[in-house]
Amino acid sequence: MIRVSRKALVEAVGLVGSIIPKGNKVNPLLGNLFVQASPAGMRLWGSNGEIDLEVSLEAEVEREYRALVPYAPFHAFLAALRGDTVSFKESGRLELESEAARASFATMSPEEYPALFEGWVEPQMTLTNAELLFILKAAYAASTEEYRGIFRGVQLESGGGKLKAVASDGYRLAMAWVEHSEQAGVCVIPRAVVGILQQLAEPGERGALGWNERGIFYRSGPYRLSARRLEGEMPDYNRVIPQAFVAKLSLPREAFLESVRRVAVLADPDNRRLDLHLDDKITLGAEGDWGRSSEVMQGEYQGPTLAFSVRAPYLLDALKYAADAEIVTLDLSGPTTPFVVRGERTMALIVPLRV
Amino acid sequence: MIRVSRKALVEAVGLVGSIIPKGNKVNPLLGNLFVQASPAGMRLWGSNGEIDLEVSLEAEVEREYRALVPYAPFHAFLAALRGDTVSFKESGRLELESEAARASFATMSPEEYPALFEGWVEPQMTLTNAELLFILKAAYAASTEEYRGIFRGVQLESGGGKLKAVASDGYRLAMAWVEHSEQAGVCVIPRAVVGILQQLAEPGERGALGWNERGIFYRSGPYRLSARRLEGEMPDYNRVIPQAFVAKLSLPREAFLESVRRVAVLADPDNRRLDLHLDDKITLGAEGDWGRSSEVMQGEYQGPTLAFSVRAPYLLDALKYAADAEIVTLDLSGPTTPFVVRGERTMALIVPLRV
Repeated sequence: MIRVSRKALVEAVGLVGSIIPKGNKVNPLLGNLFVQASPAGMRLWGSNGEIDLEVSLEAEVEREYRALVPYAPFHAFLAALRGDTVSFKESGRLELESEAARASFATMSPEEYPALFEGWVEPQMTLTNAELLFILKAAYAASTEEYRGIFRGVQLESGGGKLKAVASDGYRLAMAWVEHSEQAGVCVIPRAVVGILQQLAEPGERGALGWNERGIFYRSGPYRLSARRLEGEMPDYNRVIPQAFVAKLSLPREAFLESVRRVAVLADPDNRRLDLHLDDKITLGAEGDWGRSSEVMQGEYQGPTLAFSVRAPYLLDALKYAADAEIVTLDLSGPTTPFVVRGERTMALIVPLRV
Repeated sequence: MIRVSRKALVEAVGLVGSIIPKGNKVNPLLGNLFVQASPAGMRLWGSNGEIDLEVSLEAEVEREYRALVPYAPFHAFLAALRGDTVSFKESGRLELESEAARASFATMSPEEYPALFEGWVEPQMTLTNAELLFILKAAYAASTEEYRGIFRGVQLESGGGKLKAVASDGYRLAMAWVEHSEQAGVCVIPRAVVGILQQLAEPGERGALGWNERGIFYRSGPYRLSARRLEGEMPDYNRVIPQAFVAKLSLPREAFLESVRRVAVLADPDNRRLDLHLDDKITLGAEGDWGRSSEVMQGEYQGPTLAFSVRAPYLLDALKYAADAEIVTLDLSGPTTPFVVRGERTMALIVPLRV
């Protein structure tokens, strides 16, 4: 007999389920959850073929048990239970009970499941999960297009006293960093892995991160993750960051964000163009088939009269991203060359829209 | 100049917007909101060609104004504003301002818009909106299939001291009633109209409802609705309600609902079959490719040993529907003939699944 807290089990099963593919026709076995119990406790494993995930939880276990159970109905049944405790029998089928409810799940032989965590390397770089979550926000600027290769990932760079994350889709770039003393080089992780890490990293806890030439490895509390990394590195992005700026605009971040959101409502639905006109007044404007809108912002501007346009969603993303700053600064290099939106430990680079 | 509370305006525009069709290619004019202002206040009109809706709101208006404004950007812009008050100019375009934000919307001539509320008849049957909302819940049993004609509506019946709503998709039927002294006969209203009424009817207020051979009419506070009714009446449903029952099952509604939800997780995904076995124990069971589940319920059963099956979602819907009852009663007429789920002022009839 295995006895386990229902709440802990539902949570753990749900977490592993977040990577379990639904209706994968290439390998239907991956639709299962691997349940492993030993007197040391219970382990749940899942994989989508690219990412392997393990969650450990406390359980009273009489003897070793391994089973492959169909994820979706197992999770739905556990979630619909009300009792505090769930009991399993270590029999061929997975037989479960909680209060008056009983279920017997069709299981498959665990031997058929692919080997997980092959080539696992215990990660050595420790940091707080809050730091990890902070830098991973750069992922918003990664490309979502299938054919963009390395630009679909987030580049982690460890060295020079910093751990940095960089992402770019070719039209904009985002970067965030935390102080960090270790030196582990560069690794590009797929955006999907970023999503899972964001679920696993409990902000109050610490985690350990590491990578080698084949994969990326993470461990925090009961969670262990291993994933394929993207091959190669991003091309040198420092050459697109302007070295000299001609003007500087400083604005309260939240008010700026709201104004951009408002004015952009009437922007052309095709290019979402937002016009900025900077002199002794800071003016936002937009115009499309439905009409036109404008707004004068309160802020500080130092520089010559400058007018340029930007895709509104890019500016919105960059302003949301600078969430650690009350006042956001735009460093401008001219009407057609990139500008930089600076937060405290973030920077976003945007290429203006050519009109 | 027209001055109006931003919050009241956003709410009113959003409500009318709930019926404004998105991307209607037959009549793109219906994508607009009709704004009408006079010293008496402001009126907003919208229509999807079947349902006409009016919302009135207080406004300071200097002189008469009428405009057709594109709904989607108008609503989005208002929702993105922060000021308490919005001002319009009574000019050709709709020019709007609130704090530092300005917008000028492309408008169309109101003369091109179809005439709304033609054939309006002031509704005479008054009731509380809470009563109206209660009976309209029967709509869950209406058919969602395009070709089902009259079964896609909810039949309102006024007479015999009751106002009753009945809906059926041919496999099940739902009925709810409130005490009511008026006699207005029968009217079948489309399910879409039920959805709008559910949005308009503020539970704390009273409303007035009426119908004639062409339409249904409703008014409550600032809202006025006119809609086409479905032609004809439902066939006599009383002949499918069993006149004699052989058994009676009484169960606490919420516990029953939870058990059905739980056991049904492992039901066959095709027919969602749930098995009930009733004798000195009340047992629910289900079985499918993923495994099988069962549960013994606490309740009272009077009758011979009886086993039958039901589509789990039908039973779930009926149990949710009987929300006014703590104890729900099932009157059973046999393993293959309809049974009835009774709440306080609701009844649901379900045809068992033939196995």
